[in-house]
Amino acid sequence: MTTEKSKKATVSFDSLLRIFTVPEGPDSTLTQIEHALSHNVNEFLNDHIVTEDVPLTDIENDFAHARIPDEPEFVSTHTDHLLNKVVAHSVHTASPHFIGHMTSALPYFLLPLTKVMTALNQNLVKIETSKAFTPLERQVLGMLHHLVYQQCDAFYTPLLHSAEHSLGAFCSGGTIANITALWVARNQALPASRDFPGIAIAGAHAALRYYGYDDLAIIVSERGHYSLKKAADILGIGQNNVITITTDDNNRIDIAEFEHTLTKLKQRNVCVFAAIGIAGTTETGSVDPLPEMAHICRRENIHFHVDAAWGGATLFSNTHRHLLHGIEQADSVTIDAHKQMYIPMGAGVVLFKDPCAMHAIEHHAQYILRAGSKDLGSHTLEGSRSGIAMLVYSSLHILGRAGYELLIDQSINKAKFFADLIEQQQDFELISAPELCLLTYRYRPHQVKDALTQATALQQAALNDTLNELTIFIQKRQRENGRSFVSRTQLTPHNWSRYPIIVLRVVLANPLTTEAILESVLEEQRAIATQATLLMQRIKTMCQSILVQK
Amino acid sequence: MTTEKSKKATVSFDSLLRIFTVPEGPDSTLTQIEHALSHNVNEFLNDHIVTEDVPLTDIENDFAHARIPDEPEFVSTHTDHLLNKVVAHSVHTASPHFIGHMTSALPYFLLPLTKVMTALNQNLVKIETSKAFTPLERQVLGMLHHLVYQQCDAFYTPLLHSAEHSLGAFCSGGTIANITALWVARNQALPASRDFPGIAIAGAHAALRYYGYDDLAIIVSERGHYSLKKAADILGIGQNNVITITTDDNNRIDIAEFEHTLTKLKQRNVCVFAAIGIAGTTETGSVDPLPEMAHICRRENIHFHVDAAWGGATLFSNTHRHLLHGIEQADSVTIDAHKQMYIPMGAGVVLFKDPCAMHAIEHHAQYILRAGSKDLGSHTLEGSRSGIAMLVYSSLHILGRAGYELLIDQSINKAKFFADLIEQQQDFELISAPELCLLTYRYRPHQVKDALTQATALQQAALNDTLNELTIFIQKRQRENGRSFVSRTQLTPHNWSRYPIIVLRVVLANPLTTEAILESVLEEQRAIATQATLLMQRIKTMCQSILVQK
Repeated sequence: MTTEKSKKATVSFDSLLRIFTVPEGPDSTLTQIEHALSHNVNEFLNDHIVTEDVPLTDIENDFAHARIPDEPEFVSTHTDHLLNKVVAHSVHTASPHFIGHMTSALPYFLLPLTKVMTALNQNLVKIETSKAFTPLERQVLGMLHHLVYQQCDAFYTPLLHSAEHSLGAFCSGGTIANITALWVARNQALPASRDFPGIAIAGAHAALRYYGYDDLAIIVSERGHYSLKKAADILGIGQNNVITITTDDNNRIDIAEFEHTLTKLKQRNVCVFAAIGIAGTTETGSVDPLPEMAHICRRENIHFHVDAAWGGATLFSNTHRHLLHGIEQADSVTIDAHKQMYIPMGAGVVLFKDPCAMHAIEHHAQYILRAGSKDLGSHTLEGSRSGIAMLVYSSLHILGRAGYELLIDQSINKAKFFADLIEQQQDFELISAPELCLLTYRYRPHQVKDALTQATALQQAALNDTLNELTIFIQKRQRENGRSFVSRTQLTPHNWSRYPIIVLRVVLANPLTTEAILESVLEEQRAIATQATLLMQRIKTMCQSILVQK
Repeated sequence: MTTEKSKKATVSFDSLLRIFTVPEGPDSTLTQIEHALSHNVNEFLNDHIVTEDVPLTDIENDFAHARIPDEPEFVSTHTDHLLNKVVAHSVHTASPHFIGHMTSALPYFLLPLTKVMTALNQNLVKIETSKAFTPLERQVLGMLHHLVYQQCDAFYTPLLHSAEHSLGAFCSGGTIANITALWVARNQALPASRDFPGIAIAGAHAALRYYGYDDLAIIVSERGHYSLKKAADILGIGQNNVITITTDDNNRIDIAEFEHTLTKLKQRNVCVFAAIGIAGTTETGSVDPLPEMAHICRRENIHFHVDAAWGGATLFSNTHRHLLHGIEQADSVTIDAHKQMYIPMGAGVVLFKDPCAMHAIEHHAQYILRAGSKDLGSHTLEGSRSGIAMLVYSSLHILGRAGYELLIDQSINKAKFFADLIEQQQDFELISAPELCLLTYRYRPHQVKDALTQATALQQAALNDTLNELTIFIQKRQRENGRSFVSRTQLTPHNWSRYPIIVLRVVLANPLTTEAILESVLEEQRAIATQATLLMQRIKTMCQSILVQK
């Protein structure tokens, strides 16, 4: 452990140089952790992550000071600290019992590949700092473009590495991908003309004045991701100009309402420059009627963006690809490789049907991104970026389309199994059935079912309010117990007259999640409900009074 | 190698499960690469990266198809492919001879820590998927805030983990950090009032109408980073409304010109909502007169942002901290940890002096980021984000402030050494002296010096044009040779009457770069120049004719 020994209480430049040239010794704590991770990452995480819920305020005490330590610390000392204070209190996102969010276990080969990626430390903003990574990233974009749009080879061959074209961009995640798509759409809607330089150059105010619109708007269903409002804020459009359309029984955008809203906005002299179809909503996993939306957008000359951040990977499955039918008509598509493509955090992608679309946001500079260069930075929102495209490239090769298909199919089948399981229970209610591998439900004591159907609107509301309290209690307690994790959200289901219902939400993307685990999740929730004695008593009393009245 | 053997030509779900549960065997190619990286990353990179320049078009042939391979590939087969086609043709950014951009060798301990970070795969958007990583990230933001603003403990203690406050945000890089700062500034300049919901809600057009401005503008020197125009485009302000101010002899913003421009913009009824001081320009490493800029901004009620993406780490050095004097008066500051803090790509930070500033861009949703939560995602431009803050946290502890100080000091001293070395040469011209560890220069044959001083303006221009050609030739050829890499950019130096001069640019941040390497870089450039026989002959003839005339 030369590195350790050479570092005294005070630091010398020679000892610092060692940090850059001499690796951790084979017996060092950090090397041992690395070996443990290589040997069995699940075992390591199971052994080191504390499962009971420690109050956040307790954890905060370990991170309470704002002063940078003046003197260096031994790597081994710090590693012990990391294990006890950071790893121990992190979230076991890879656990097969963690089915509340879109994180999952990762394929093993990605750990060493991440190390290769970090050691190479390429910067994809320009070829001078990335070289082969630039054509590699362009190829991955081409492959994902083909996954969505399925153009012929004759389309891709001249475009894949053309300096004048771009099939899309890598981004740190779906939010940046969605912003990039809407940025392109906004700039295309208010372009340069003979006597106006375009919104990119002159700004939104000048552009609206020049084109004579009173406002700009984006249309999406009420299930749209929260990042779209953020996008509208950043782009100078305003959150209120994200016009949300109600959804039907299946959480899909209501097409009639969409048409009606378009008409109203046109009457108000508002330029609707983008509509967003969702292929896998965050809350319910629903897919909008994409062909109908595409048809309207084409007719009205509106940019049609599909947010498939989560659901896009469904396209790998020949069996389920049809669920996203119409996505190939989108002008742009967001896919997060760090969701159902099992890549570590930080790999979003936006794709454009038209390989010239990104001209609308192109930029150049003297020292990099010179005009005519193939530097990827000339059409990305971000500047310096890592070579994470390599991980996607490797996964596409090692798993192959067929491998991804199996993963997608088993997730969707598992969700169907779980939905059936819930429906078989007397005391659970499926709220949204899975279209992909995401579903919502709640615990609802047996007697409530009859009572709810016979209750007045007011009684229904009171009962649902109490059930909402119970759902929150169950979700929180289960998280605190630390064995399993499901998330929760609020929906307004049609069969409850659009009354706000708190639901439990599961995403079944982890291939290690078994049917037995799903059964145990329900059992634990049932057991937690019985512990909520006051709430359960209140529900019982309410039901009795409703049923007696009838 | 169970993983390999179990995978046949067709893939089964069991074999896929193995990819998630069974690590690479100890003899697998990937494991061997990992060991080689742990053993000696520099040796591995030296051995595997091909140094001669391979034409990009040749590399593109290896990434020519847009179809996703249908069938899986053995990990070992794919790893061989990666070594030959990707690693071999990547850029050796960690090489001590690679002094053209802001990348450097990384401390060894970051490789295993990156693996820990990836294995944990936390998502910092919310506490439910990050837990201890959330207070950790907040602490790191607090430490960097303290590095810049040096408030007392009584300031930080109640704020560090307050759900109602935020000292800044982690971003994928400096571009997103700058956009975030300008987003906050824009929203604060056009806020909600009694009868207006603010620009965030209503958009730029409505806000300008409401407040009665004709336009918005951002002020920065002509040395401002190219991303600022991109930021203005995205934010709906327009690239033309990034008003650039000329610089003085030292590439610093001209304060008189700044004042003059402000007056003109006010007369034109333009709302100047932000001015940007640069602490380490990308092209010359210069630092703007920050106290003077801060004074004007305070007087005019303009948000003062400092782009210290590259130079910010200078604050670690008690010896050189004074070079960034005035930065503590900024309303916001960008620092990239992946630049002079030696963190792998993807770690930018924006800091706000006022812990309430980020309220201007706060957003919430039902399923995450509920109001009152401490979810970091409620005030970041990005959504899902990795736990890269852990790498910054560890580096701050393992290196300590004193360790960073040594690194910064040696970089600045090395730049001074190199500047002296250049000035000692008869045939090199220092164009911008280093303020930090960045400088520019060019090769200029001995006889040109006299000729240029005696030449007419036209002759000067012609001679400088030819020298520009020579500089481009030298820079390209040196890159192609593959032993060393310096970058180039175009400046308009005062001593050449602001004529466009192409310069060689070096960033001396790699602690492994020695004085001997710097001497060899000049020697190689001199040797390349002599190979440019036609250009050198032309220069000689031009000089003779100028000197004869006199």
